[in-house]
Amino acid sequence: MVTVGLLGYGYWGPNLVRNFNATDGARVLKVCDPNTDRLRKLAQTYPGVEGTTDPDAIINDPALNAVAIATPVSTHYDLAMRALTAGKHVLVEKPIAATAAEASRMIEEAEHQKRVLLVDHTFVYTGAVRKIKETVDSGMLGEIYYYDSVRVNLGLFQNDVDVLYDLAVHDLSILNYVLPNKPCAVSATGMANFSGGLANVAYLTLFYENRCIAHMHVNWLAPVKVRRALLGGSKKMIMYDDIEPSEKVKIYDSGVDVGSDPEGMYKIKVSYRTGDMWAPKLDTTEALHTLVRHFIDCVENHETPITGGQEGLFVVRVLEAAMKSMKGRGATVEL
Amino acid sequence: MVTVGLLGYGYWGPNLVRNFNATDGARVLKVCDPNTDRLRKLAQTYPGVEGTTDPDAIINDPALNAVAIATPVSTHYDLAMRALTAGKHVLVEKPIAATAAEASRMIEEAEHQKRVLLVDHTFVYTGAVRKIKETVDSGMLGEIYYYDSVRVNLGLFQNDVDVLYDLAVHDLSILNYVLPNKPCAVSATGMANFSGGLANVAYLTLFYENRCIAHMHVNWLAPVKVRRALLGGSKKMIMYDDIEPSEKVKIYDSGVDVGSDPEGMYKIKVSYRTGDMWAPKLDTTEALHTLVRHFIDCVENHETPITGGQEGLFVVRVLEAAMKSMKGRGATVEL
Amino acid sequence: MVTVGLLGYGYWGPNLVRNFNATDGARVLKVCDPNTDRLRKLAQTYPGVEGTTDPDAIINDPALNAVAIATPVSTHYDLAMRALTAGKHVLVEKPIAATAAEASRMIEEAEHQKRVLLVDHTFVYTGAVRKIKETVDSGMLGEIYYYDSVRVNLGLFQNDVDVLYDLAVHDLSILNYVLPNKPCAVSATGMANFSGGLANVAYLTLFYENRCIAHMHVNWLAPVKVRRALLGGSKKMIMYDDIEPSEKVKIYDSGVDVGSDPEGMYKIKVSYRTGDMWAPKLDTTEALHTLVRHFIDCVENHETPITGGQEGLFVVRVLEAAMKSMKGRGATVEL
Amino acid sequence: MVTVGLLGYGYWGPNLVRNFNATDGARVLKVCDPNTDRLRKLAQTYPGVEGTTDPDAIINDPALNAVAIATPVSTHYDLAMRALTAGKHVLVEKPIAATAAEASRMIEEAEHQKRVLLVDHTFVYTGAVRKIKETVDSGMLGEIYYYDSVRVNLGLFQNDVDVLYDLAVHDLSILNYVLPNKPCAVSATGMANFSGGLANVAYLTLFYENRCIAHMHVNWLAPVKVRRALLGGSKKMIMYDDIEPSEKVKIYDSGVDVGSDPEGMYKIKVSYRTGDMWAPKLDTTEALHTLVRHFIDCVENHETPITGGQEGLFVVRVLEAAMKSMKGRGATVEL
Repeated sequence: MVTVGLLGYGYWGPNLVRNFNATDGARVLKVCDPNTDRLRKLAQTYPGVEGTTDPDAIINDPALNAVAIATPVSTHYDLAMRALTAGKHVLVEKPIAATAAEASRMIEEAEHQKRVLLVDHTFVYTGAVRKIKETVDSGMLGEIYYYDSVRVNLGLFQNDVDVLYDLAVHDLSILNYVLPNKPCAVSATGMANFSGGLANVAYLTLFYENRCIAHMHVNWLAPVKVRRALLGGSKKMIMYDDIEPSEKVKIYDSGVDVGSDPEGMYKIKVSYRTGDMWAPKLDTTEALHTLVRHFIDCVENHETPITGGQEGLFVVRVLEAAMKSMKGRGATVEL
Repeated sequence: MVTVGLLGYGYWGPNLVRNFNATDGARVLKVCDPNTDRLRKLAQTYPGVEGTTDPDAIINDPALNAVAIATPVSTHYDLAMRALTAGKHVLVEKPIAATAAEASRMIEEAEHQKRVLLVDHTFVYTGAVRKIKETVDSGMLGEIYYYDSVRVNLGLFQNDVDVLYDLAVHDLSILNYVLPNKPCAVSATGMANFSGGLANVAYLTLFYENRCIAHMHVNWLAPVKVRRALLGGSKKMIMYDDIEPSEKVKIYDSGVDVGSDPEGMYKIKVSYRTGDMWAPKLDTTEALHTLVRHFIDCVENHETPITGGQEGLFVVRVLEAAMKSMKGRGATVEL
Repeated sequence: MVTVGLLGYGYWGPNLVRNFNATDGARVLKVCDPNTDRLRKLAQTYPGVEGTTDPDAIINDPALNAVAIATPVSTHYDLAMRALTAGKHVLVEKPIAATAAEASRMIEEAEHQKRVLLVDHTFVYTGAVRKIKETVDSGMLGEIYYYDSVRVNLGLFQNDVDVLYDLAVHDLSILNYVLPNKPCAVSATGMANFSGGLANVAYLTLFYENRCIAHMHVNWLAPVKVRRALLGGSKKMIMYDDIEPSEKVKIYDSGVDVGSDPEGMYKIKVSYRTGDMWAPKLDTTEALHTLVRHFIDCVENHETPITGGQEGLFVVRVLEAAMKSMKGRGATVEL
Repeated sequence: MVTVGLLGYGYWGPNLVRNFNATDGARVLKVCDPNTDRLRKLAQTYPGVEGTTDPDAIINDPALNAVAIATPVSTHYDLAMRALTAGKHVLVEKPIAATAAEASRMIEEAEHQKRVLLVDHTFVYTGAVRKIKETVDSGMLGEIYYYDSVRVNLGLFQNDVDVLYDLAVHDLSILNYVLPNKPCAVSATGMANFSGGLANVAYLTLFYENRCIAHMHVNWLAPVKVRRALLGGSKKMIMYDDIEPSEKVKIYDSGVDVGSDPEGMYKIKVSYRTGDMWAPKLDTTEALHTLVRHFIDCVENHETPITGGQEGLFVVRVLEAAMKSMKGRGATVEL
C-alpha cells in the first residue's frame, strides 16, 4: 500500500486526493496546507483524512511512504529534497522545479535514495497523447515537419511564474514524449502587459535537426479557450484539439507531393493532396488516474517513470533558454 | 468610365473581371495572359472582352485608363512601372512588389504621374476588418495588448515567394489598418521543409512601443484551414474568425482587473473577469467589390487610396525584415 | 440541518451525495443500494456515510428528515409514498413517477403530510435556463412562435422506460418553466428498433394556443451528442446549446418583419432581418448544487419548490399523451 | 449541342446560365424574365445571351432544343407542358409541380414526346449525397434504423409555397435516392405564424416497413443555419453536415450491440459501442455542374435521368400527404 501525504490543497490538490483514493493500492492519509479554510473543506469532503498546516508533519511521518507536492513552483525544490532525504517517493507538480540546477539536484537525490521521482506531466497520460505517440512511432506520419500548439485562455495569473512556466510546460512535455529527437535551439518572444514583469503572452520556437520545427503560443489573456496542436508529417498530419468532447485526435491523409519540376532546375514542384480523415477511438480514462496508477506501479516495482526527473529537467532547461531568448527579443539560444 | 486592362488571368484575375463588370463606372476591356487556355476560358465566359498574350497591347492601349496587375510578385514592379509611365492608374495585387526599394520607386512614379496606385490588400475592405477598426478607434477595447493571428491551410505552394510573402501580407495589411502605431522591431522563425529554400511555415513577432505585441502564424502545410485572429485590449477583446459563416467578429467583455496587491509590495494583483459576448452585424458586401468601388472613386476624384503605395511599402518593409530575422533564427531586426 | 438518506447509488446517486455534502445545512447520512459493489465504492469515497441494502433502514430512520430517491422510475411511487407517509421530505429523480395517477397521489400525500416534494428537473436550475426564462419574462423576445429541441446521443438504453421518459422529460420541464402557457394537444411519432418495444427514437410536437408550437427530438441511437434548443420569437430568437463550453445561450436580434403586401390582397409580405448576436454571461454554478440548496431552503422555510409535484405531474401527463399518440402514429391527443 | 432557353432569371436562374455555359456541349441562348431589371443584369454579365419577357419566344424558338424552368412552383406545370409539347427537353426546378396530378401529366407528356424531363433535385448530385448512397448500397451501415434531418435558417419567405414545399423537397429527394425502400405513411405537424396560412415551421415523419423511420425539421424562422442529417444503421452511422466546409460526411463505427438478457425473459440487453470515426474524401464538383452534365448526357443518349419525373412525382406525393396530415395535427396519412 502506497501511503501518501499531500502538500498543497489548492487548485490541483483535491484532484490528487480524489484519484489516489479511487485507485487500488494507495490512500492519502494526510494533507498539508497553510490555508485553514482549505483544510476545513478537506475535512467536510474526506472526514477520514488528517489535515495539517505543518509540512514536516507529513515529511517526517513514518506512516507515509510517498509525498505528493502540489505547491507553488518556487517551493518544489525545497519540499521535494526534504521528502526524498526522508526516504519518501515523490510525485511533484509541473514544472519539476524553478531551475535546471534544482532539477538536477533532485534527480541525484532520488537516485541516491533509490526513490521514485515522478513529475506530473499530466497530458502524457491522456488517451489522446498516447495515441499520437503510437501514431508517430508507427511511422504512419512519415518525416515530421512541424509541431504547432496554441494553448490560450483567460487564465489565472500566477504570482511566481510567467505564462511559459505555467502553460508551455504542457507542450514541452508532450513534445518530449512524442518526438524522437531533441531540439537544438530556441527562440522566444513575449510580453508582460502588467507591472511585475511576468510575461502573460509568449511565443516559443524550437529548432530541431532535420528541418523540423516546433512552436508554442501560450497566453493568459485570451477571450476564448484554445487547446489545439497540429503535427505535420510528410505522409499524414494530425490535429489534436483537446477542447473537442470526442474526436480529440484527427489524422488527415493529406500532405504535399514533391516531384521534379520539368520547367526548371532550381525549383521543385510541390502539389497538395487531400484525402480521408480518421478519428481513432481514444482511451477516455482520466489522465490523472493513469498517472497515479503509474506512480504506484513504479513505487511497487522500483521502475523509472515515463515522466521522471530527466523529463522534468528537459522541460525546465528549455524554459530557461526561452526566458533568456525572450529577454533578447527572439535571439537564438542554443540548447 | 474607368476602362481597365487586366494583366494576369490566373487564380485572382477572374474575380477582378467579375467585380469590375458588376460595378457601375468601370469595365474590363482587355485581358492579357501568356496561357492561351485561360484566354479561351475568358472568351467563353465573357465574349465581349478581348484577350491577348502581349502586355504591351494593354499598357500602350490609349482606350484604357487603368491597369490591374494580377501576375506573379516578381513581375509587379516592372509591369506597374511601365503602366504608370504610360499614364495608367494601377491596381496591383499584394504584395505591392518584391522589395521595399521597388515599392518606393513605384510610389514616386505614381506621384510624379499623378496616378492612383492601389494595392489589393483585400481584407481591409471586408465588413469584418472595418468593424474591428471602428471598434478599436472608438476606444472600446482600451489599451491594445496584443494581436495574434493564425492563417494556415494546405496551400498552393508558390514558385516565387515563400509563405510569409503569400499569407502574412494579409495580417500585416490588417494590422497596419487597424492599429494606430507602427511596429519597431521584428523577430521571425520558420522552416523550408522542401528543397528550394522557400519557407512553408513561418512565425513572425512584431514589437511595438507601449508593451504591445503582434504575432502571425502562417503555414502552407496544415491539414485544416484556420483564419483566426485575437485582439486583446485592457477593457475588451476581439476574436475574428474568418471561417465562420456569420458572427465573424466577436467582442468579449472579458479581461483582467489590475489592483494593488495587499500582500506584497513588488507584485501586482491581477484577477480575470468574464462577461457578455457580442457579435455585431457586419456588412457582407464582397470585399473585392468594395475595393473596386474605392479604386474607381479614387480615380474619378483624384484621391489617395486607403491601401495605396505607402501601405504596400510598409508591408514589404516588414517582410524584408522578417526574412532577415528568419535567417538569423529569430534574431531581432529593428524596423 | 437536513439529514438525508439516499435510495439508489447508481449513475446519479453519487452526484447527490457530493452536492448535499458540499452544501451547508445538509448531510447525507445513509445510502441504500441493492448492489454491494456500489456500497463498497461508497465506503471507499465517503468513509463516514453508512451503507445499507434495506430501504426501510432509511425510510424508518428517525435520524433522517429527508429522503432522496434515485432509483428506477417504476419504483418512484412506492418509495416516495412510504417516505412521505413516514414524514420525510422527498427529493425524487425525474420523472416523478411512471403515471400521472401515481404523481397525483404523491402530491396529495405530500400536502397531507405537509412535506416538501421536489422533483429533480435539473435543467431548470442551470444558469442557462434561468437566463432564458428571465429573457422570456422580460418580453424581449416578443411573441413566442416556437420551441425546438434536439437531445440525442448514443445513450444508455434503459430497461424500464423508453427514450421519451428518459430524455424528453428535460425539455418538458424546461418548457413548463420557461413558457407562460400550457400546451393543449400532442402529436408524437417514434420507433423501437429492438425487440422489447421501448422506443429509442421519438419526436414530440406540442400544440399551444396562439400559434405557438413546441417540438422535441430525442434519440438514444445517434452517433453524436447534441443538446440544442431554439426559441423563436417575433422580436428576437434564442439558441441554447448545452454542449458549448461557454456561450451556451445566444440571443439573436433577428426575425422577420411583416408588412402589408402591395401586390396582393390575400397574402402578407414577410421579409427577414438579421442583426447583432449577444451571449449573456451565465451563472456557472452546478445545477444540482442550486437544486440541493433550493430543496434545503424549501424544507427549512416550508416553501413550495419551483419543480414540485405539480411540475412533475405536468411532465408525466404530457408523456402519457405522447405515448398514446405514438401508438397512433402521430394522431392528435388532447391534453 | 444542347441549346437552352431559360425561363426565370431570379435567384437560381443565374446559376443555371453559369453552369450551362461552363459545360461543354451546351449553351444558354435565350433567357426570359418578366422583370426588365434582371434582363439588364443579364445583358451586363452575358452580352451574348438574348433576353426576353415573353416565354413563347423561348418555347417556340426552333433554335432551342431544351428549356430550363426556374420560375415559381405554380407555373411549372403550364410552362413544362408547353415546352414538352413543343418538343423541348425540360429541366425543371424542384418541386416538379404543385400537385401529384400535374406531375403525372408531365411524366406522360415527356414519355409521349420522347423528351428528357429532369427535376433539379440538386442535392442528389453532390459528392456528399453520392458518397452516402454508395455507403448505404455497400451494406456497411447494416440495417437502416432512421434518417433524421434538420434544415433550418432565417429564410426567404415564399409567396406561393410553404416551408415544406421549399425545404423538405431536398430531404425527400435525398431519401428517395439513398434508401432502398419507399415510405408507407406520413405524419406531419407545423405552424403558420403569420397570416396567409403558409407554414413557416414544419415537422414531417415518414414511416417505413421494417422499423425504419425518417424525420425532417424545416424552418424559415431559425436564427442560425443548420443543414444536418443523421443516418442510423445497425452497424454504423452517418452524420452529414452540409455547413461543414470539409468533412461533410462522417461515418461512425458506433452503434448498439443487442444480446440476450440473462436477467429476464421479456427484455433484451442493449449496450452501446463507440469506435473510430472516418470522414471520406468527397468529390467537390459543384452539384449543379454535375446535374447539367447529366442533363446533357440524357439528352444526347436518350437516357432516363436519375432525378426524372418519377422522382419528382414521389416528392410531390409525400408533400401532399404531409399537408393533409399537418391539417389534422399529425394524423397519419397512408401513402
